[in-house]
Amino acid sequence: MVLDPPLPRPLVGRLTVIGLGLIGSSILRAVDVRQLAGTSVAYDAAPEVRARVAELGIADEVAASPAEAVADADIVILCVPVGAMGAVAQAIAPHLKPGAIVSDVGSVKGAVLAALRAHLPEGVHIIPGHPVAGTEYSGPDAGFATLFKNRWSILTPPEGADEPAVARLSQLWAEMGANVEIMSAEHHDLVLAITSHVPHLIAYNIVGTAADLESVTQSEVIKYSAGGFRDFTRIAASDPTMWRDVFLNNREAVIEVLGRFTEDLIALQRAIRWEQGETLFNLFTRTRAIRRSIIEIGQETAAPNFGREPE
Amino acid sequence: MVLDPPLPRPLVGRLTVIGLGLIGSSILRAVDVRQLAGTSVAYDAAPEVRARVAELGIADEVAASPAEAVADADIVILCVPVGAMGAVAQAIAPHLKPGAIVSDVGSVKGAVLAALRAHLPEGVHIIPGHPVAGTEYSGPDAGFATLFKNRWSILTPPEGADEPAVARLSQLWAEMGANVEIMSAEHHDLVLAITSHVPHLIAYNIVGTAADLESVTQSEVIKYSAGGFRDFTRIAASDPTMWRDVFLNNREAVIEVLGRFTEDLIALQRAIRWEQGETLFNLFTRTRAIRRSIIEIGQETAAPNFGREPE
Repeated sequence: MVLDPPLPRPLVGRLTVIGLGLIGSSILRAVDVRQLAGTSVAYDAAPEVRARVAELGIADEVAASPAEAVADADIVILCVPVGAMGAVAQAIAPHLKPGAIVSDVGSVKGAVLAALRAHLPEGVHIIPGHPVAGTEYSGPDAGFATLFKNRWSILTPPEGADEPAVARLSQLWAEMGANVEIMSAEHHDLVLAITSHVPHLIAYNIVGTAADLESVTQSEVIKYSAGGFRDFTRIAASDPTMWRDVFLNNREAVIEVLGRFTEDLIALQRAIRWEQGETLFNLFTRTRAIRRSIIEIGQETAAPNFGREPE
Repeated sequence: MVLDPPLPRPLVGRLTVIGLGLIGSSILRAVDVRQLAGTSVAYDAAPEVRARVAELGIADEVAASPAEAVADADIVILCVPVGAMGAVAQAIAPHLKPGAIVSDVGSVKGAVLAALRAHLPEGVHIIPGHPVAGTEYSGPDAGFATLFKNRWSILTPPEGADEPAVARLSQLWAEMGANVEIMSAEHHDLVLAITSHVPHLIAYNIVGTAADLESVTQSEVIKYSAGGFRDFTRIAASDPTMWRDVFLNNREAVIEVLGRFTEDLIALQRAIRWEQGETLFNLFTRTRAIRRSIIEIGQETAAPNFGREPE
């Protein structure tokens, strides 16, 4: 039996995170706690966010510009909204060292891959990524080191990507606690359309519909939200800029899945109108099993009411 | 200043709960803990549920028939699915004592009021009710005494209802920890359509849509559910019989609100198709404020991710 050579420690010499919100600051914290980088470097376009991260002390260096941030970096992870990826890639392109890995954490992969390819030079390894983890809170104070633990991190290397580079980035995510999966950008965008993008859109939509009803006041909606509505408001409180960009950059898959959803919903409405109780009962029974599976594989808590404590 | 006369202790002489699932068993537990009844009596159509409740010891008496259950009861609370209310009312009608209060906990009030009126005799006070509380679990083991704490309990007495009877029932709910609100059955059904019924329907629907996609496997949906999807599965795991009955018995209001929801969703889909980023951003910003209000009035936890602990 041939043993793998021991992993180099630290795993990465110089690791740069650009964009210091929930995800970016969580990466810095995880890297810090597990000592995964020789030097961690942080940059954000907003001076007050840079100042806050310096104050939090979760990065070894807080850079003053994109150029300074990526100079000599081995791995650069872009944690900015999907719509900002192109501009950031353009800003860092001239300053990247040959052989550097550039990755990201955007919720859309096809559009990001295209944006990075358009701006980054030859000799840089582009390996887009997406950790399927998050909370409804934003900003550098919202992050925490265990955010990725037991969550999936999807990498979407383009065809012909450098295998050692993919392996290295995979190792970094694994060391942060994530399970790593490799798939094409195209398939990622379809999987996430149904597991994340359309659910968010529906949540935003029902909250908006409720706010606009004339026959029921907004204070009534808020008061009686424990009947189910409040579950939707959690994800409808997520960062507006990030989510606007997701929908604009994964249009085709979102519209495709949304079409299915609406078709199914109209069929369900018809079943209600025509009092087809069995159709309703069968669907409602089927969906219970899916919940059970999600709990079984550890992607959800089994605590009733999400463990909300009665006050 | 005139003081109210002290409340009689116990508040109710003989209290009967029919239907011993999540809500019924929670009432029994709350009544037990707070000593709200001289004698609590439990009945369920299923012998194994009756046996389990006897084993749990949460009722003073477990009756063998509806007739025995309601004999001499001062307050009877029906905790059966909405579609079963008529049959239960018919079964208990001949055995109710004059002046007894008959209430329920169904999620639909117009249809229940009609069903109770059709079967119950003159001289019995019909005061339908609905505690807006619950979890995704069912059955007598799922209940707990604090389920109603800081939740709203809505009573929908018909016009001309006996005021002392309404006051007594309100007091019972208040003693179980609930805030009591009085409104018409019609308004209740509209308020709950938006705060509970349509959210449940949408949750059931998206889980069904996801299960039926050919391009994304069910195991992928389960695996990557932390992206948002899993939040929907909680309420889509609720009791199928109860929810079938809700939709069949609140058809008009559900179809009305669903029409609004679909209209809004199609507008949103159009905004995505035509890349109207501002429309999306504005909606996504508006919905955050509603979440904040729900947290502020104590109907929701502010813990990120519903306080799901990273494993």
